[in-house]
Amino acid sequence: MSTSHAIRHVRITPIAFRDPPLLNAAGIHEPWALRSIIEIETAAGLVGINESYGDLPMLEALAKAAPALQGLSPWSLNEMEARVRALVTPPKQTTSEFLTQQVSLAPGTHVSKTVAKVISAFEVAMMDLQGQMANAPVVDLLGGAARDRVPYSAYLFYKYAEHIEKPYAPDAWGEALKPEQLVAQARRMIDQYGFQSIKLKAGALPPEQEAAGILALAQAFPGTPLRIDPNGNWTVETSLKIVQQLHGVLEYYEDPAPRLDGMAAVARECDVPLATNMVVTDFAEFRRNADMGCPVKIVLSDHHYWGGLRATQQLSMLCRTFDLGLSMHSNSHLGISLVAMTHLCASVPLLTYACDTHYPWQDEEIVTGGRLKFENGSLRVPTGPGLGVTIDREALARLHDNYLRCGIRNRDDLGQMKKYDPAFTGVQPRF
Amino acid sequence: MSTSHAIRHVRITPIAFRDPPLLNAAGIHEPWALRSIIEIETAAGLVGINESYGDLPMLEALAKAAPALQGLSPWSLNEMEARVRALVTPPKQTTSEFLTQQVSLAPGTHVSKTVAKVISAFEVAMMDLQGQMANAPVVDLLGGAARDRVPYSAYLFYKYAEHIEKPYAPDAWGEALKPEQLVAQARRMIDQYGFQSIKLKAGALPPEQEAAGILALAQAFPGTPLRIDPNGNWTVETSLKIVQQLHGVLEYYEDPAPRLDGMAAVARECDVPLATNMVVTDFAEFRRNADMGCPVKIVLSDHHYWGGLRATQQLSMLCRTFDLGLSMHSNSHLGISLVAMTHLCASVPLLTYACDTHYPWQDEEIVTGGRLKFENGSLRVPTGPGLGVTIDREALARLHDNYLRCGIRNRDDLGQMKKYDPAFTGVQPRF
Ligand SMILES: [Mg+2]
Ligand SMILES: [Mg+2]
Repeated sequence: MSTSHAIRHVRITPIAFRDPPLLNAAGIHEPWALRSIIEIETAAGLVGINESYGDLPMLEALAKAAPALQGLSPWSLNEMEARVRALVTPPKQTTSEFLTQQVSLAPGTHVSKTVAKVISAFEVAMMDLQGQMANAPVVDLLGGAARDRVPYSAYLFYKYAEHIEKPYAPDAWGEALKPEQLVAQARRMIDQYGFQSIKLKAGALPPEQEAAGILALAQAFPGTPLRIDPNGNWTVETSLKIVQQLHGVLEYYEDPAPRLDGMAAVARECDVPLATNMVVTDFAEFRRNADMGCPVKIVLSDHHYWGGLRATQQLSMLCRTFDLGLSMHSNSHLGISLVAMTHLCASVPLLTYACDTHYPWQDEEIVTGGRLKFENGSLRVPTGPGLGVTIDREALARLHDNYLRCGIRNRDDLGQMKKYDPAFTGVQPRF
Repeated sequence: MSTSHAIRHVRITPIAFRDPPLLNAAGIHEPWALRSIIEIETAAGLVGINESYGDLPMLEALAKAAPALQGLSPWSLNEMEARVRALVTPPKQTTSEFLTQQVSLAPGTHVSKTVAKVISAFEVAMMDLQGQMANAPVVDLLGGAARDRVPYSAYLFYKYAEHIEKPYAPDAWGEALKPEQLVAQARRMIDQYGFQSIKLKAGALPPEQEAAGILALAQAFPGTPLRIDPNGNWTVETSLKIVQQLHGVLEYYEDPAPRLDGMAAVARECDVPLATNMVVTDFAEFRRNADMGCPVKIVLSDHHYWGGLRATQQLSMLCRTFDLGLSMHSNSHLGISLVAMTHLCASVPLLTYACDTHYPWQDEEIVTGGRLKFENGSLRVPTGPGLGVTIDREALARLHDNYLRCGIRNRDDLGQMKKYDPAFTGVQPRF
């Protein structure tokens, strides 16, 4: 490698973008979602980019690890991993913090994932550089395309019409609390994006009401695969009761009950395959599931916290070896994150279900050219070098300004929900 | 990708090179070892190279699959795999052929591995092309170096002084049947290559005699890690008896008894970790071992039959997930194969033991510059583009001529042994 390709600078820019009042097991989305934009620059001036989590602990971890990249070749992913592991130690947790984390939704916010998250954040940007150096898209660096487009699903949420603080004009989606509103939301999203499967984020309203939502969707979209994800907010008993009501309509059943033992208890009495992004979230948990005879049959990965694109490819071989299905989890994100997912998913021969994405819930973008275009619910894999997208610097400045002004520094769905309902505790399982 | 990098031609050249009369459980090495040299040429004239098995069924499978590469980008490994899978179906086996296979030594010669072997043969050559296109060594395409040199072990064999047919002058190593001859062989090999661990291929002489060999090595090389590999040629009872005699001197115990159930029976009574290249030879067998609670603790991989460099990297993550060790198996091979192994092993963070190589037993070479140089038992990872080695065409012509003249078309250690001992059956376990 010519030394001109040595990494000389890492920039981390926190951004915030509008996010609708989406309900979930932990509470409700705040008006602004946070992400970080990673830019890694070589001595020759190439810039590799990525998008990751934007909460304060993540920004601190990224800042702590960034100097480790100085002088490194963009090809040296193993060395980057070793250096990050040496520099970033997950913060110690108190018991009360741990209990708080237990009610959090996303493994992406858990401190145990800090090292994997930082590695992933740098890996994607380094692979963007590799692709520019090799004149090859990231999908090629991952073994080439197993498919030329990646299918995503319509990701429905129960939601209010607008945020309690009214920080900006209401979103275009309107309220969705009743079955007919949910069906209207699905209709709008499918009309606009062409999705061919539907996921409902559940665990927010009483389970019978959410089951009614799924049944209304089944009636409105006959033959369309449906999924429900209560995020572990239902007891085993509730999980089993609801799945009976949904007999014959679910493609898979995502995280109905909490913890692997809860999922195993559901699996014993239920013939719908269980999917998870909560109880198999790293390789150690993969093994626990395997050791229990694989009660969970579908792993919803997320390269942002599994340790990167290559780690997720390795996960896919683990899934193949243990006859598990594989698809992808998402968080509120913009185009760089979505494009990285798309390269990854195109390269993974085993991708058994359309992937999750929150993308339709966002109306801002920082990639040049603006919002990505779906075709029949799928995204084409970019064919340009690296990720194939670049940053619109004006948009980056605007979204960074959002960050500076919004006041939010850590995602807090629980705290936000208490503004609507001071009695809300978030303790799970709630139903 | 510019179309000038599309693959336009695949050349497969069978070669043969001198191989000493090395004893093993299946019989004895013939005077000539076979390999194939794969050359994949792009429209622009770049040539990616590799070395793989050279037996007739493999040559036929390679020939059958080669047209699938026409027009493919060297980056399109997933597509190459899909096309090879579609074209190459493992030949059907009769029961008697299956029983014959059961006494064969190497998974590399088993027809069930045909698809994985062809994929690997093409993958390495395509990655050599990728490296030339990207101006990066193969190790970088695999995530970069986790180490800058790869340790190998001294691979000892019981052997005769020369082949029964006396096809050429006796090799320089002399006879090794008694403990003192084995120690002399080890001394010579360590003096010449600097290896820091020792493996003994066993299963050939009476087990007590082979145990005496290990004990003599332990005395002559105190502190040097020792391994013994009877290739499943011992009963469980013999395996347990011998390991008691070797208490405290073995680093690991490689394939003492046949089949996974035999290995599991040994594992239950034995505190030396078991290693294998015979009962965990693909991902399905990995799972069987995991489902049994991992009686085998160390997987000796071999990218030639595991499906390539990337498949072996994925295996390494499976090993990490299940707390297994990982090292590498070898066959009689030359520099291209050894260099590919070295790139792979440099890129795998988990490499818990020095790798096997038969390389010291060969005295020919086809890479430009001749025989590779070990330093303290290790090989440095080449830093040039791709594999970092090229073919010496004069040497290739000479070794192809060997192939044409030697008359051997399939490895047959059993048939060769019958020339020495017509009563030899090769039925395992023999002891
Ligand atoms: Mg989920
Ligand atoms: Mg072996």
